[in-house]
Amino acid sequence: MTSTRLPEITEDEQQQLDQLYADFAAAHMAPLWTQIGGLMPVTPQPDSVPMLWRWSTLLPLAERAGELVPVGRGGERRAIALANPGLPGTAYATPTLWAAIQYLGPREEAPAHRHVQTAFRFVVEGDGVWTNVEGDPVAMRRGDLLLTPGMHFHEHHNTSDHPMAWIDGLDIPLVRTLDAGFFEFGPDELATKETPAVSRNERLWAHPGLTPVGAPAPRPRSSPLMAYRWEHTDAALTAQLELEAEGHPGVVEPGHAVVRFTNPATAGDCLSTMRCEMHRLRTRTRTATVRVAGSAVWQVFEGSGTVTVGDQHYDVGRGDLFCVPSWAGLQITTENGLDAFRFSDDPVFEALGLARTSREDTPA
Amino acid sequence: MTSTRLPEITEDEQQQLDQLYADFAAAHMAPLWTQIGGLMPVTPQPDSVPMLWRWSTLLPLAERAGELVPVGRGGERRAIALANPGLPGTAYATPTLWAAIQYLGPREEAPAHRHVQTAFRFVVEGDGVWTNVEGDPVAMRRGDLLLTPGMHFHEHHNTSDHPMAWIDGLDIPLVRTLDAGFFEFGPDELATKETPAVSRNERLWAHPGLTPVGAPAPRPRSSPLMAYRWEHTDAALTAQLELEAEGHPGVVEPGHAVVRFTNPATAGDCLSTMRCEMHRLRTRTRTATVRVAGSAVWQVFEGSGTVTVGDQHYDVGRGDLFCVPSWAGLQITTENGLDAFRFSDDPVFEALGLARTSREDTPA
Amino acid sequence: MTSTRLPEITEDEQQQLDQLYADFAAAHMAPLWTQIGGLMPVTPQPDSVPMLWRWSTLLPLAERAGELVPVGRGGERRAIALANPGLPGTAYATPTLWAAIQYLGPREEAPAHRHVQTAFRFVVEGDGVWTNVEGDPVAMRRGDLLLTPGMHFHEHHNTSDHPMAWIDGLDIPLVRTLDAGFFEFGPDELATKETPAVSRNERLWAHPGLTPVGAPAPRPRSSPLMAYRWEHTDAALTAQLELEAEGHPGVVEPGHAVVRFTNPATAGDCLSTMRCEMHRLRTRTRTATVRVAGSAVWQVFEGSGTVTVGDQHYDVGRGDLFCVPSWAGLQITTENGLDAFRFSDDPVFEALGLARTSREDTPA
Amino acid sequence: MTSTRLPEITEDEQQQLDQLYADFAAAHMAPLWTQIGGLMPVTPQPDSVPMLWRWSTLLPLAERAGELVPVGRGGERRAIALANPGLPGTAYATPTLWAAIQYLGPREEAPAHRHVQTAFRFVVEGDGVWTNVEGDPVAMRRGDLLLTPGMHFHEHHNTSDHPMAWIDGLDIPLVRTLDAGFFEFGPDELATKETPAVSRNERLWAHPGLTPVGAPAPRPRSSPLMAYRWEHTDAALTAQLELEAEGHPGVVEPGHAVVRFTNPATAGDCLSTMRCEMHRLRTRTRTATVRVAGSAVWQVFEGSGTVTVGDQHYDVGRGDLFCVPSWAGLQITTENGLDAFRFSDDPVFEALGLARTSREDTPA
Repeated sequence: MTSTRLPEITEDEQQQLDQLYADFAAAHMAPLWTQIGGLMPVTPQPDSVPMLWRWSTLLPLAERAGELVPVGRGGERRAIALANPGLPGTAYATPTLWAAIQYLGPREEAPAHRHVQTAFRFVVEGDGVWTNVEGDPVAMRRGDLLLTPGMHFHEHHNTSDHPMAWIDGLDIPLVRTLDAGFFEFGPDELATKETPAVSRNERLWAHPGLTPVGAPAPRPRSSPLMAYRWEHTDAALTAQLELEAEGHPGVVEPGHAVVRFTNPATAGDCLSTMRCEMHRLRTRTRTATVRVAGSAVWQVFEGSGTVTVGDQHYDVGRGDLFCVPSWAGLQITTENGLDAFRFSDDPVFEALGLARTSREDTPA
Repeated sequence: MTSTRLPEITEDEQQQLDQLYADFAAAHMAPLWTQIGGLMPVTPQPDSVPMLWRWSTLLPLAERAGELVPVGRGGERRAIALANPGLPGTAYATPTLWAAIQYLGPREEAPAHRHVQTAFRFVVEGDGVWTNVEGDPVAMRRGDLLLTPGMHFHEHHNTSDHPMAWIDGLDIPLVRTLDAGFFEFGPDELATKETPAVSRNERLWAHPGLTPVGAPAPRPRSSPLMAYRWEHTDAALTAQLELEAEGHPGVVEPGHAVVRFTNPATAGDCLSTMRCEMHRLRTRTRTATVRVAGSAVWQVFEGSGTVTVGDQHYDVGRGDLFCVPSWAGLQITTENGLDAFRFSDDPVFEALGLARTSREDTPA
Repeated sequence: MTSTRLPEITEDEQQQLDQLYADFAAAHMAPLWTQIGGLMPVTPQPDSVPMLWRWSTLLPLAERAGELVPVGRGGERRAIALANPGLPGTAYATPTLWAAIQYLGPREEAPAHRHVQTAFRFVVEGDGVWTNVEGDPVAMRRGDLLLTPGMHFHEHHNTSDHPMAWIDGLDIPLVRTLDAGFFEFGPDELATKETPAVSRNERLWAHPGLTPVGAPAPRPRSSPLMAYRWEHTDAALTAQLELEAEGHPGVVEPGHAVVRFTNPATAGDCLSTMRCEMHRLRTRTRTATVRVAGSAVWQVFEGSGTVTVGDQHYDVGRGDLFCVPSWAGLQITTENGLDAFRFSDDPVFEALGLARTSREDTPA
Repeated sequence: MTSTRLPEITEDEQQQLDQLYADFAAAHMAPLWTQIGGLMPVTPQPDSVPMLWRWSTLLPLAERAGELVPVGRGGERRAIALANPGLPGTAYATPTLWAAIQYLGPREEAPAHRHVQTAFRFVVEGDGVWTNVEGDPVAMRRGDLLLTPGMHFHEHHNTSDHPMAWIDGLDIPLVRTLDAGFFEFGPDELATKETPAVSRNERLWAHPGLTPVGAPAPRPRSSPLMAYRWEHTDAALTAQLELEAEGHPGVVEPGHAVVRFTNPATAGDCLSTMRCEMHRLRTRTRTATVRVAGSAVWQVFEGSGTVTVGDQHYDVGRGDLFCVPSWAGLQITTENGLDAFRFSDDPVFEALGLARTSREDTPA
C-alpha cells in the first residue's frame, strides 16, 4: 500500500508512512495516490466481464423453479437473474442492468406491486400471459416489448394451460447503487382478468405520428405506450433493409437495421434509464466493432451468429443472452441472418453527459 | 385625433396640440395615448372576421382556373387562396395562415421550388397526384395529410387522367409579416416519376413508437414523416370514441375525439408554425364554446353540422372551410356526426409564450 | 392583374380570365400566381425602411408633449413612438418592434396597468424615476435596462423636480398582428413610494452565477431580474476589450464587444420576444456588414460613428435611434469609439426556426 | 438462502431446492425471491452511514502527508479522501460522491491532467494557490468555489511560502460504478505561472445577467464560469436574510438562506453531476427535518451548531465535514449562526427522474 513513487525511502520514513496510513484508516480517510489508477483509469476498467447465458440452460432451470417455488406475496416474482461473475455477491448482469428470466406456470398469478425501478418484459417465445399495468391488461406474445415504467402498479397472470417464460429487464443495480428505490405492495387481487388483444394504451398511442389530444397527460419520463408489437418492429426492420437494397439510406451500416423503442409523447427513449432496441442483420453480415461507454445486455431473438465481446467469442442462437461491459468492443457476424434485442444504460450516460462511442470498421 | 382625456382645453391649447401632432408626424413619430385602445385592447380585437367558404363554390372556380391558367414556372402553383374580408388587399385567411384550393389537371406538373414557408396539403377528395418532397414521391389520397416542411424542395404531378384538387395550408402571412421568407427555384424537370403507394419517409418513420436509428437525422423543426394516412387517423379517432363508450378516457370532451399530427422525431407539432389536427364528433354532439388566442382554419371532411364562430352561424358540409379569428368563440354541433380537419397557429403562440384558452361548457 | 405567363391570349380568353378574377373576388378568393413574387420573395422584401430618429428632435417634442398632454388613466403613458415611413398608418418602428420616447415631468405618475406585451425601458440620460414592477420599486438611471415582462403590473413615478425621458421598447406590433394582446388596468394609487437604490429582484438575482433557492419561482418566460445596471454592463464590455488587447477571446469581431441581457433563471433572452444587447466599439473600428433575418432598433448610448443600413448612411451620436429592417446590411464605423444599445426580434425568429444571418467582412 | 415463503416443505423438497440453488449458482444465475427485500426496499436502505470528519483531525493528517508524500506524476494529487465506514474497501464519502482534503506545500505544484470526472475545490481557509484550468489561472481564497468540469486540463501550484489545504469534491464513485471514466495526463510543465486576482473566465462570465456574446461557446454541461467568489456568495446570503427581516420572500425557511452555484450559460447546476450550495442559518435557527433521495456532503464554513443525520447527532464547527446518506433525515440547529457548504448528487437524481424530497417541520 506504499506509494510506488517513493523508491528509496529510509526505514524510518517507511515506519512514519505506515503510521500515517494507519492513522488515515483510524480517521476513516484514504489517500488518493495509492489508488488513483483503479479509481480513475485511462479508459473504463469494468469489474463486470463479458458473459454468455444460453437459453437452453436458463429455461430448464426456470421450469424447475416453477415446480419448486411458488409465486406470491413476498417473493413477488419467479424471476432468476443473470449474475455477472465479475460482480460476485450480486445478481447484476452489469453494474446498472438487471436481466432475468421470469417464469409463470399455467393459471398462475404474480401479485401487484410498484417501484421506482423501471422495468420491461421482452418475449422470445410463448404467449398466454397478460400484464396489467395500472389496470390496463397488456397481452404478451413472441417479439413483443412490454413496459412497466417506474411507480406503475403491475401484475402478471397466465390465462393459459401452458407455462410462459420471458425476460425481464430492470435498472435494479443502478437504483440500488444510488439508494433511490421506493417500493409499494398493491392489492392481492388482480385488477382485472380481461384479456383483450390490444391494450387501452395502444388504442390511444399506437398510431404513427398521431397524438391523442384528450388522453390523460403521460407521467413525466414514462411512455404512455406500453406495448411495442412484433408486427410493427418486424415491418420497420424489413423496410430498412429493403430501402438499403433499393439504394436508399436507413440502415446503420451495411446489412444492419436498427429500431429504437421510443416514447411517443417525447420521442425519447421508451424508459428513463434503459434503452431498448431491436437489431436485424441481413445474411452474411459482419458489423463494425463498436465500443460504447456504458453496458448492455443482448438476447438473440431469431437466427444465429458469432459474437465477439472484448476477447470472448460466442456462437449464439435463439434465446441466448450475453452482456457487454463498458468500453468492451462488440462485433457480430452472421451467415444466415440474425435478429437480436438489445437493452442498455445509454439513457443514463446521455442524461449525465457521459456518453462516448468508438467505431472500428473491419474489412469483410 | 385629440386625446379624449382633455375635455376642457382652450382654443390656444388645441392649436398647440394640433401643431404638436403635426410636428410628430413630420418627425415620423406617433403618440401612444391617441391609439392605445386599438394597439393594446383588453382582449384581442382582430381585423380578420369569421368567414365561410363553400367547397361547392371553390371547386368550380378552381376548375375554371384549370382551363384558363397554366401551371408552370413563375406562377408556380394553381392555388387560389381564401381571402379574409377583414384583411382587404391580402390573400390571407387569418393574420398568420394561408389556405388555398390547389387544382392540378390530368397529367399536369407543378415545378419544383422550396421556401422558408412551411406547407401542407390536406385531401378532402380525389387521388392520382404525387408530391415529390426532396425527391421522395408521396401519394395523395382522400383523408391524407402531406407535409412540406420549410426549405424542402417539392413538386406535384398528376399521374391520372382526371383532375385533382386539395387544400394547401401555409404560414405565408406570418412569414411575410416577419419578413422572414427566402425562396428558391428547383430544377424544371421532375425529380422522379415513380408512383409508389408508400413513400420512403413513411417506410422509415410510420411505425408506432419505433425510431429508425440509421435514418438520416431529421432537419431541425421538420418532421421526417411527411405523410399521415387516413387509415391511421381514422383508426385513432375510432378508438377514442370506442374507449369513451367503454368508460375509459381518451376524448377531449363527450363525443369529441381529436388527434394531433406530430413529428415522430420530437413528439411536437408536425410543422414548426402550424398545428394540424383531425376532429371527430359523434352523432348528436355539441362541443363546448372555446376561445383560443390565435387563429385557425377548419375544413369539414365528412358529415355535417352547425358551426358558431363569434356571432356567425354556418351550416356546413363536406369540403366547406371556415376561419376562426383570435379569441372568437367556436362551437360545433352535429346531428349525424362530423369529421373536420383543423389547422392553426398554436405552435407560434406556444413558442412565444402567448397561448391562452378559455372554455365555456354549454348545457346540451 | 393578368398573369404574366400568358403572353398571347385571345381577347375572349382575356374576358374569361377577367371574369374569373372577378368571380374570385366575389367569392373572397385570390389567386397565388398573380402575387407570388410579393408573397414569397427570394429574399425578404420588407415594407419597413431604414430610418434615423435624432435624439435632438425627439426630446424637444417629448418636452412639448409634457407641457400639453397629461399622463393618466386612459392614455396611460406619455410615450411617442417611432413610426417607420414604410409602414404608414402604424406607429411601428419595424413590423414587430415598438420604440418610443417616454417623458415624465417632475413628480408625475403614470398609473399601473399590465398587458401581454413585453416591455423594457432603456435610459440614455437622467434619473429620478422609479418603476414599480409588481410592487417592487426599480430605480432608473443612465445606462440601466429595466424590464417589464408580460402581465406584470407596472407604474412609473418621478420622485424628482426635473423631468426624465427614456426609451420604451415593446413587442406591440407583433402582438397586434397575432391578435394576442390582453390588457388590464391596475389600481389608481401607486403600489409604493419607496425609492431604494436597489430593487428586491436585484437583491435576490443580481449575483453572478448564484441562484436564490428560496426565491419565488420565476414566471415562465419572465426574467426574475428586472434591472441590469450600467455599472455591470460597462465592466463586462471593458473586460472583453481588455481581454482582446491581451490576446484572449471574448469579442465578437476585432474591436467589437457585446453583452446580451439574459434571464438568470434560464440563461435565455431577458424577454420572451425581444433580444436586448449592449455593443461597444473600440476607437477606429469598422464592423463587418451583417444581414439578419428579423428587424432591430438601435440607440447610440455614447460616442459617435457612421452607420450604414442598406443603402442609407447616417452620422450618429448620443441618443440617436435607427432601425434595421430584415435582411438589410448593417455596418457601423467609429473613429472615437461608440456604445450602442440594440434590441431586436431575434428571439421570435429563433423560437420559430426562422433565424438566418449572413456576414460579410470588409477590408479596413 | 431458502425462501421464507416455504414454511413447510419436505426434506426431499428441500434437497431439490438446494440443488436448484446450486445449479443456479453454477449457471451464474440468482433468484430474485430470496433477495428482493435488499434489492428493492420500501424506502432507500443505504449501506453508507452518517459520518462526521473533524477538520481538526483532517488537517494535521494532511500536514503529515505533506512531509512524507511527494506530489507529482503518478500519484497526481496529495488528496486524502473521506471513507464512509459503511462502504468498506472504498474511499467514498457516499455511493456517488468523493470528498477529500487536498494539501499543497509551499511552492509545490500538482501536475496537469484531465478526466471525465467532474471536480470542484472549496476553500475553507487559506490562500496562495492558483488552479490553472485549461491554462486560465484561477486564484483560490477562503470561501471561493472553484470548478474543474469534466475533461478540462487542470493543475495546481502554490505561489506562497505557506502550505494550503482545501476540500476537493468529485463524482469519482458514480463514474467508477458506471465504468464511465477516461483520464489523460497533461504536460509536466505548468501551463502558466501567472497569478491574476481574477481569472479570464470570470472577466467574461461573472457579470449578473450578462452573457458575453463573443465568448467561446461553453462546452456542453460545463459551466464557463469556474470561480464563484465569497464576496458574491456572502452578499447574496446577506440580502436574503435582510429581505426576510423586511418581510419579503427569499429564504427557503425562516432564518435559512441558500444560494445554488449555477452555470450562467444554462442556469442549471454548475456541474453536470453535482449540486453545490451555500447555506446560511441566522442565529437561533432550527431547520426542518428534510429527507432527500440521494446523498450529500456538508462542510461547515463558519459558526457552529448541532447536526442530526438519521439517528446521529454532531456538534460541528468550522471545517467539519459530514455526509448525509440517501433518505436520512437532516436537521441543523444553531445558536450563534452557521454558514455551511453543501454538495450532493441531486443533478443525477433529477436527470434520471429519481428525485424525491420529504420535509417535516419541527416546532421550535
